[in-house]
Amino acid sequence: MDGHRHEVRERIRASLPAELARPTDHLGTEEHRALTTQRLRALAALGDHLDGFSADVGGREDIGAQTVDFEMLGHVDLSLTIKSGVQWGLFAGAIQALGTERHRRAHLPGALDGSLLGCFAMTETGHGSDVASLRTTATYDAHTEEFVIHSPDPQARKDYIGGAARDARAAVVFAQLRSLGEAHGVHAFLVPVRDEAGDPLPGVTLLDCGRKAGLNGVDNGRILFDSVRVPREALLDRYGSVATDGTYSSPMASRNARFFTTLGALVKGRVCIGGGALAATRTALAIAVGYAERRRQFPRAGGAGEEVLLLDYRTHQRRLLPALATTVALGFAQDELTEQLHEVQNPVLRGASADSEAQRRLEARAAGMKATATWHASATIQAAREACGGAGYLSENRLGQLKADTDVFTTFEGDNTVLLQLVAKGLLTAYRDSFEDLDTLGTARAATAQLVATLASRTQARQLVGRITEVAPGRDETAELLDREWQLRTLQWRERRVLETLATRMRRAKKAGADAFTISNDVQDHLVLAARAHVAREVAEAFDRAVRACQDPQARALLSRTLDLHVLADLEADRAWLLERGWITPARSKALVRAVNDLCAQLRPHASRLVAGFGIPDEWLQAAVLQD
Amino acid sequence: MDGHRHEVRERIRASLPAELARPTDHLGTEEHRALTTQRLRALAALGDHLDGFSADVGGREDIGAQTVDFEMLGHVDLSLTIKSGVQWGLFAGAIQALGTERHRRAHLPGALDGSLLGCFAMTETGHGSDVASLRTTATYDAHTEEFVIHSPDPQARKDYIGGAARDARAAVVFAQLRSLGEAHGVHAFLVPVRDEAGDPLPGVTLLDCGRKAGLNGVDNGRILFDSVRVPREALLDRYGSVATDGTYSSPMASRNARFFTTLGALVKGRVCIGGGALAATRTALAIAVGYAERRRQFPRAGGAGEEVLLLDYRTHQRRLLPALATTVALGFAQDELTEQLHEVQNPVLRGASADSEAQRRLEARAAGMKATATWHASATIQAAREACGGAGYLSENRLGQLKADTDVFTTFEGDNTVLLQLVAKGLLTAYRDSFEDLDTLGTARAATAQLVATLASRTQARQLVGRITEVAPGRDETAELLDREWQLRTLQWRERRVLETLATRMRRAKKAGADAFTISNDVQDHLVLAARAHVAREVAEAFDRAVRACQDPQARALLSRTLDLHVLADLEADRAWLLERGWITPARSKALVRAVNDLCAQLRPHASRLVAGFGIPDEWLQAAVLQD
Repeated sequence: MDGHRHEVRERIRASLPAELARPTDHLGTEEHRALTTQRLRALAALGDHLDGFSADVGGREDIGAQTVDFEMLGHVDLSLTIKSGVQWGLFAGAIQALGTERHRRAHLPGALDGSLLGCFAMTETGHGSDVASLRTTATYDAHTEEFVIHSPDPQARKDYIGGAARDARAAVVFAQLRSLGEAHGVHAFLVPVRDEAGDPLPGVTLLDCGRKAGLNGVDNGRILFDSVRVPREALLDRYGSVATDGTYSSPMASRNARFFTTLGALVKGRVCIGGGALAATRTALAIAVGYAERRRQFPRAGGAGEEVLLLDYRTHQRRLLPALATTVALGFAQDELTEQLHEVQNPVLRGASADSEAQRRLEARAAGMKATATWHASATIQAAREACGGAGYLSENRLGQLKADTDVFTTFEGDNTVLLQLVAKGLLTAYRDSFEDLDTLGTARAATAQLVATLASRTQARQLVGRITEVAPGRDETAELLDREWQLRTLQWRERRVLETLATRMRRAKKAGADAFTISNDVQDHLVLAARAHVAREVAEAFDRAVRACQDPQARALLSRTLDLHVLADLEADRAWLLERGWITPARSKALVRAVNDLCAQLRPHASRLVAGFGIPDEWLQAAVLQD
Repeated sequence: MDGHRHEVRERIRASLPAELARPTDHLGTEEHRALTTQRLRALAALGDHLDGFSADVGGREDIGAQTVDFEMLGHVDLSLTIKSGVQWGLFAGAIQALGTERHRRAHLPGALDGSLLGCFAMTETGHGSDVASLRTTATYDAHTEEFVIHSPDPQARKDYIGGAARDARAAVVFAQLRSLGEAHGVHAFLVPVRDEAGDPLPGVTLLDCGRKAGLNGVDNGRILFDSVRVPREALLDRYGSVATDGTYSSPMASRNARFFTTLGALVKGRVCIGGGALAATRTALAIAVGYAERRRQFPRAGGAGEEVLLLDYRTHQRRLLPALATTVALGFAQDELTEQLHEVQNPVLRGASADSEAQRRLEARAAGMKATATWHASATIQAAREACGGAGYLSENRLGQLKADTDVFTTFEGDNTVLLQLVAKGLLTAYRDSFEDLDTLGTARAATAQLVATLASRTQARQLVGRITEVAPGRDETAELLDREWQLRTLQWRERRVLETLATRMRRAKKAGADAFTISNDVQDHLVLAARAHVAREVAEAFDRAVRACQDPQARALLSRTLDLHVLADLEADRAWLLERGWITPARSKALVRAVNDLCAQLRPHASRLVAGFGIPDEWLQAAVLQD
């Protein structure tokens, strides 16, 4: 299941020392931070991180490989994963993406070899999701040809900044650029924050966020700027620059375009977080499935002999196997996303400008996958912990730390709920555009589709829809549920239908005179639903492509069954929605529940094989329950 | 919302120092353990724990108060809560419940004043849920009049034992009693494990479970016994004793009855864990709701003025408010359960024997509530963490530690999945009994109910059922959803229907010749569903009684609306099941989703008032985000 970057994965499997996977949650905060920094330097020596940088600074210009590097590191040490993500993904990554050659030559060599540790100061106490409203200011002073970086109020304090508490010498600071009395929006500045001795520079206040629920190897902190002066060249000016006299200029068409291009250049971070979440999920499942294949409890009812293996219990299968199937599914989707990222961003790394339409698609997919993969990680690692009982609670079995370390993944690099709303709003725009652009034939088709949808929504039409979508009475209900074509058609229809009704609701609310906030707030849950339905369809289609591309007939059959379980467990969880809209009858809905149970039983003998497909080296697992 | 024990709660609010609520997850394991032990001794001096003991050892004989003590402690320091639960609930509690006067006089004074710290050694590496299969042996040697306590194999190792790693001088050890070549099943023995200097006694091996995901103030460890000899009097012999010559005798009618009576005496532990879980949930919601009332993000769409408060967003309301309503609901149910425990067990504490039917009902309710309240805690604290974004991840805001500390609540004192299956099996037995005992009128009623249920399950009958259960077209769908009578009837019907179909499935499988394991394993998910439906009905009815008992009209109206949200959010989550069985139509199902949204909006202005109703002293909250 390695996907497109098998060789990269194999290289990392061979190069990362297994000791990195040992639990570290017994360490004190300072000790853990010191260890992580030391490991970061060792990682710098390995050199994998060079994959993501341009050749002019010694980079290997392979963004796809860099993304897989990050994901693989997620199997062993999540603090190190995030620490390196801050250093090379965010700090050095921002210099690479938002700076120009001058910045690269001056700062990237040190950032890459670890001699210049940095941080990425975007989020503030008062604003995280709403980046456009950041309060830190960067005011150009034409007399001294300097920017004045300033935190005007407590809400402007940079917060949760990885590296700020202990290690960072410099920060990429996002601030509102002002020059000649005019505001130009959020820009990034390279600002030194500590001297060689590690003390804060004048005007810079550095605070420690202290202990966290997890990721305690990363030194998150807070930064306040009291009129700190930096040279004009501190502006990372790829998308906007200030001349010595204070004149502002930008290659971008509008302020809005500039803002979204600046943020869009950082899309790699979201792709990486999704990948890291999947790595942790795989590790957790490998431990929980391994335990469930060893641990026995209760004598066999009415029988003699050995006690029953946990994985033979239906409730235990229900806890682990649909999650396992979905982890496989998300893995294939993540693999495709990584290649998509590579195709769009690698040329940019080599100096080309981004294809804006391809970039837009990439951002939407990255946002949807990040939210989906990180929530899946939270739920699955939790289920894995519970499935290992008391053993799952001991640090020696890693599950607690995996849960704690990945918990914030649902929040950082974009809060999941906010991200899914962005995805849905993008879909809505595309949907409206497609209506506006329709030729005659298109209009006719769309009208028919809408008619069917409208009919389906009416109780009276349920019989009709039933006849269309239901198998004849007496036929095996399960047969069609296992029909791949039906599965994918259902996911496509759900996505489309949720979107159509969303558009209708918003149109109606507008006609009824609702204010803009009420219109968008009342449909928030609908927006999230639309994004979920969209991602679910994309993930299933990616899995389907992977199944069809699989050459080995046995592996293909197993993967196909795994895809069945993934899709049907999703539809089972959402069957109320399908019933409400008449897509399935009550009889088929019940058959769905049975089918998921049956698929769990069918896949149960292959669970360990699927886990083996994750390709986690045994010595990386480091869970005490797997050692005997 | 204090319920029956308002004065006890007030006493504890006034007596527990607020500093106990400060985060402790930055402490090293040994430091945290030392602090917790020190706090345990301070707690001993306060004396609240005496509530749960008999007057002959200075106890106050008030089990209800003891249970509330535990719950209130859960608001401040969960390690201390569990540490004290081990010392006074499990260790001293087992001596009180399973021992006789001799044991009480010899050991309880020290156990109560903290001079004799103990542990409760039931669970083994190989057996936790299946207590009957424990492997530790206690073989009586009539020559020396001693029991020989022995761990015959690695699976017999006592595991996860709170107190074993550091503090415990003595252990209540559960072991298979053998005498004169005969096995008599699991009994409890009081076994010294450390000398005065804290070193393990000869034959006793004590190991440390090390760091855990949470509760690191509790020193969990492992114990192995190598033919350790203890005097005959070490057997806690209330329900079974061995004469000097090795003759075994018991006041119980059967070995089975003895086993369940022994375990049943420990039911208080489960009640306490549910209460502690609720306390942690309340704290988490108080923090998250408080934050959502302060934190603003994004300008108002299409409007000017202040940014929008998080709690004004529908997605945020959806995250917190149904969970808040359910927390209120579970609080009332827990209050009733506490009184039920008091009524059944307080007379036993005073020397009476238990009313076995009342004890059975108590055990079933305690098991169901423990599973429900602890899973609710896990999900709600997780939601609260995410709802506070990055701030929720910092230890200074407590949510991470609340989550980590309560995570194992779903596992210990009985794995939730196993507990719910026990509850369902009890219901099934009662259901069968009720059919056998029916008089003529009863039979007729049951037959009618079954006919209606059967009709409802048939697709063809949906129109008919629709007419019965549905409002007339054009009438407001929501009206009946808010009818309390309809709500409770729906919960009652669901419970009954799940149980009936469960019984039918099992009967059919048996007729079809399935083996005993297959029969029970195939319905495991159905068993869990039946227990959930049962608990849901009980919880809603408890809440309904509390609403009807409320004297203040304003408070009553608010509580009534909160109950609406609790019930409708439950039904919304389960609406597929209701649709499949024709209890609701698709139109009503959609109305259910709208009703939950509307109720969230209606309760939103009262969220802080509901949280205030939890009565958590401000100085106990200790979350940095609430300090400004």
